[in-house]
Amino acid sequence: MSISIEFPDGSKKQFDDGVSVLEIAKSISTSLGKKAIAGKFNGELVDLHRALKQDGKLQILTANDDDALIVLNDTAAFLLAATLKAAYPKMHFGEGHSTADGFFYDTDNEDGQVTVNDLADIKAQMQALVKANGEIKRVFVSKDELLKAFAGDPYKESLINAESGVQIPAYQLGDFVDFGYRALLDKAGEAKIFELLSVAGAYWQGKSSNPMLQRIYATAFYKQADLDADLKRRAEIKERDHRTLGRELDLFFVDPKVGAGLPYWMPNGSTIRRTIERYIIDRELAAGYEHVYTPILANLDLYKQSGHWDHYREDMFPPMDMGDGEMLELRPMNCPSHIQIYQHHIRSYRELPIRIAELGMMHRYEKSGALSGLQRVREMTLNDGHTFVTPDQIQDEFKNILQLMMNVYEDFDVTDYTFRLSYRDPKNTEKYFDDDEMWNKSQSMLKGAMDDLGLDYYEAEGEAAFYGPKLDVQTKTALGNDETLSTIQLDFMMPEKFHLVYTGEDGQEHRPVMIHRGVISTMERFIAYLTEIYKGAFPTWLAPTQVEIIPVNLDLHMDYAESLQKTLAAKGIRVKLDKRNEKMGYKIREAQTQKVPYTLVVGDQEKNDATVSVRAYGSDKPSTEDLNVFVDAIVSEVKNFSRTGK
Amino acid sequence: MSISIEFPDGSKKQFDDGVSVLEIAKSISTSLGKKAIAGKFNGELVDLHRALKQDGKLQILTANDDDALIVLNDTAAFLLAATLKAAYPKMHFGEGHSTADGFFYDTDNEDGQVTVNDLADIKAQMQALVKANGEIKRVFVSKDELLKAFAGDPYKESLINAESGVQIPAYQLGDFVDFGYRALLDKAGEAKIFELLSVAGAYWQGKSSNPMLQRIYATAFYKQADLDADLKRRAEIKERDHRTLGRELDLFFVDPKVGAGLPYWMPNGSTIRRTIERYIIDRELAAGYEHVYTPILANLDLYKQSGHWDHYREDMFPPMDMGDGEMLELRPMNCPSHIQIYQHHIRSYRELPIRIAELGMMHRYEKSGALSGLQRVREMTLNDGHTFVTPDQIQDEFKNILQLMMNVYEDFDVTDYTFRLSYRDPKNTEKYFDDDEMWNKSQSMLKGAMDDLGLDYYEAEGEAAFYGPKLDVQTKTALGNDETLSTIQLDFMMPEKFHLVYTGEDGQEHRPVMIHRGVISTMERFIAYLTEIYKGAFPTWLAPTQVEIIPVNLDLHMDYAESLQKTLAAKGIRVKLDKRNEKMGYKIREAQTQKVPYTLVVGDQEKNDATVSVRAYGSDKPSTEDLNVFVDAIVSEVKNFSRTGK
Repeated sequence: MSISIEFPDGSKKQFDDGVSVLEIAKSISTSLGKKAIAGKFNGELVDLHRALKQDGKLQILTANDDDALIVLNDTAAFLLAATLKAAYPKMHFGEGHSTADGFFYDTDNEDGQVTVNDLADIKAQMQALVKANGEIKRVFVSKDELLKAFAGDPYKESLINAESGVQIPAYQLGDFVDFGYRALLDKAGEAKIFELLSVAGAYWQGKSSNPMLQRIYATAFYKQADLDADLKRRAEIKERDHRTLGRELDLFFVDPKVGAGLPYWMPNGSTIRRTIERYIIDRELAAGYEHVYTPILANLDLYKQSGHWDHYREDMFPPMDMGDGEMLELRPMNCPSHIQIYQHHIRSYRELPIRIAELGMMHRYEKSGALSGLQRVREMTLNDGHTFVTPDQIQDEFKNILQLMMNVYEDFDVTDYTFRLSYRDPKNTEKYFDDDEMWNKSQSMLKGAMDDLGLDYYEAEGEAAFYGPKLDVQTKTALGNDETLSTIQLDFMMPEKFHLVYTGEDGQEHRPVMIHRGVISTMERFIAYLTEIYKGAFPTWLAPTQVEIIPVNLDLHMDYAESLQKTLAAKGIRVKLDKRNEKMGYKIREAQTQKVPYTLVVGDQEKNDATVSVRAYGSDKPSTEDLNVFVDAIVSEVKNFSRTGK
Repeated sequence: MSISIEFPDGSKKQFDDGVSVLEIAKSISTSLGKKAIAGKFNGELVDLHRALKQDGKLQILTANDDDALIVLNDTAAFLLAATLKAAYPKMHFGEGHSTADGFFYDTDNEDGQVTVNDLADIKAQMQALVKANGEIKRVFVSKDELLKAFAGDPYKESLINAESGVQIPAYQLGDFVDFGYRALLDKAGEAKIFELLSVAGAYWQGKSSNPMLQRIYATAFYKQADLDADLKRRAEIKERDHRTLGRELDLFFVDPKVGAGLPYWMPNGSTIRRTIERYIIDRELAAGYEHVYTPILANLDLYKQSGHWDHYREDMFPPMDMGDGEMLELRPMNCPSHIQIYQHHIRSYRELPIRIAELGMMHRYEKSGALSGLQRVREMTLNDGHTFVTPDQIQDEFKNILQLMMNVYEDFDVTDYTFRLSYRDPKNTEKYFDDDEMWNKSQSMLKGAMDDLGLDYYEAEGEAAFYGPKLDVQTKTALGNDETLSTIQLDFMMPEKFHLVYTGEDGQEHRPVMIHRGVISTMERFIAYLTEIYKGAFPTWLAPTQVEIIPVNLDLHMDYAESLQKTLAAKGIRVKLDKRNEKMGYKIREAQTQKVPYTLVVGDQEKNDATVSVRAYGSDKPSTEDLNVFVDAIVSEVKNFSRTGK
């Protein structure tokens, strides 16, 4: 019997039934035989020694192929497990394999979890195993044999019992057997370039009611240069990552024991948040918005009427039965609340556009595995707003909102974003509210407005919401994820569902159009984003501590330092005086670590001359300034939302 | 057989078994026989003709006795029901009887509910019934007879079936029979002085899942002068009632269909709230507090540890099962959240007192019948704060908090309050945390502080919290209910429960004392309170609209009006320009109705002289002022939290 193998270039060739990937590679060229590390057969990763027994498409993988990193990192995960199994006789094992970003293995050691301090030892032992360069063989093992190999390990037992076949495909190196991989390299020595990165708690199978395992994070590459570049990238991310900075600058914390995805804002983070909240409210009031407070709970019927309960239920919290016939629901969005405000009065065309805004707290159910710092949370406060317009006002109001956004971006020095105009897919009549005229008209209105304002954008067909076209402003997080910073969404449907009307010039009832808009998204996400783009060095107007005063000598210069503190505080500056009995150099370094915009050192000369020695954050050398000049400058800097020194 | 009757003066007298209250009254004096309206026998109200069959204490009631109003109002409720039953053949009846404040009857009319417009007719018919002066007799009626009398009335049927006896005591006037009263007067004509006040929806048996009935509110007195005084009092209350004012000034609304006890703050109310929130935060920051944001949800375990789940559960919302083993609970109080903030760092004695504050949203379950406007709600935002002190710092910190309170009261012009120092009852060792030394020491600390500050207070033994003594600042609502405006509570227990520590000067761990404090209670309750004490005329710094500009002629004076608006807005003044095509007098009256602090009318003269014609709220005559003088004056008034014209 022979089988027909088709290659990526479309050519076909016949081979004996049972031919291995390696044999095929060698048959093409000697060099390919040497470079081949695995294959991809009919879309599935297969190791070099896999015997092929049917017709199909085959791609021979070399180290340069994207999928090759999967094979390498799966192999490294296998070798890590083998190393740990030998080193920790009382260790249990959860899952472990390659990811888009390296590999990991979940462990649970009865004698105490491994810590970051153990990683160097483990790495050395893993390197020894790599050096021995044993052969990694694909084998079929019965459940009983596997259960014996992992006797007393509850997690592996559970994974083994969940396997469907009788004989389970596994890999073997010496005495060690493990399963759950796609395809491995055939020699341990090929996975010699790796790094063990960190450890962190991870619930068994991602459920917070399950035991907490210790996850070891690591990564592997084919070339040392690639590993070096990756480690550098990770260090940069870590430096920018709002979770790291949030800890270092004492901005916030999350404690899954008290509530997953529910951040506690420490005083420093709260100062930033409060400053931003006041800023955006004042901006919106000046732009003609009316700010409101609406309840975060409502009768479930409200979300049935709005359609959220039917279409969005999996993201909502469970309803609460109040025992008197009322079912209360934590709101997942604020639009139905603002509709209540609109409907509380009879509205006339003379009043439109009506702009209702709120810092609206919402709750969304996210799986605990998806939660991350301030970026993915379960309780959030959205800079939300809904404007109600006549159909004729759509374009002008869209421009008004865009103008507000651009002004706000400028104040926050946000420059790295793209505009996406999202349209319906006209062929998909299921997915989109059915009204050709509405779609064509409103889409061209948005496009026209963008063109009028001379803004760059890209168009995305099929990305609109069900109820209307929208504009999204897209940015990237330190971890490389896409995030929507701002959005403007036209909505023709919600006004129908709630029978919204206004009295027109003709005395008749008309249906308004609703525009959902968010300028700076949620407080949580926006502050995570700012922390990352500023790398924690918040501009003066946002910095938790704006000025730190350090007297050269606690006895001699405290009077002057205190009068300085009073002067600045009276001008509304957030100022701290470091009275601790520590060395001056230590205090200055700490103020820099805390990224305080201005550190003032005051000694004899400053006291005598009524000056301050100013060290701006990030600058090497202090400069001497007249006290009044400094005070005026910082007050104006705060007022103008300027960055330090700009 | 004879029975022995004891009178309020202690004297006793023998009467024949079965003697009536009226006969006893007559036996004492002819005039008492004439004045008697009912009796109180062994604590129970009895009508004049009730035959007494056992020994007991009897008080003969005349119109001057407090309890006499119960009898009169029950009688009037009975007469109202008799009137309605004759007038509305398709009306069903819920409960109806006297209350502390008059009487009511719940009705459900198949042909449409009665409205306030029907009350005059109903009153006339009731007056005719009173005039006929029929005899009201106490009778015993079987359930079947009552069911027949109220055939087809589901509410009365339910009330009849809930009665326990076979023969039910009832009252009869002509053909009309009704039950559920304590004791009635014996002649319809004696209830001639009454007023039907208002109607409002009321759920059958107070449950929001039940049908909504129409409640008729009314009141009755023995003397016309008493009724007149009562109606005057009611009008005054209504004028001050924050629910009435909230509607008139468009501050907020509550819609039980969307959520009972969950207020929606309209833009006007939101402006007041936002101004107060910013004010109190800035005050607290200046007083050394660190403001935080903490999540409103937590794992139920947190409230088990704090003791709330055990002792406070009936006031808490039902927990939410998140499906991954986590039970989340809406917090009923913020203390456990602030404890998380305290515990996030190791604390040293050098840092104490640590003052953590928050505008903390909380949820408390209140029965729907207890909910009222902004005063009794289910979702509230508390001006909360917790300071953590060493035992030595208690007295100083107590004074600091008191000083903050007094400063805040002054800014809000709050003057009508009393201080209550609440101690434990030393005999009740069950109710109070058991530590004699702690109680004695801390109670005398609080008392000492009050005396040092020269403040008047009263002492209430047995009013302390379980965990420590406290100071409450008590006020009264327009409806006459006592409310706590501010509180300072020492807590020796929560630090134990959460194992709170700080490192002392000795390097050892010590237990801090926690002080719970609220300066202006919840935003909801405080703004309800302010609305009532200001009678809706908020001082300039709080008024939603601070200045209203009215041009004499829309064509001629709009330019000047607009430049005026710009000038004021640039100074941060909330200013409106009335551009409507309405008469000037109408606009001025409306600005007064809306209680806008300053109305500026501008015409030729003002435009030419750069002046404004200023009408301060409540003053009859406008005065002409130089524009710049007015601007400076209002800016300073806002800055100083002054009342108009003060």
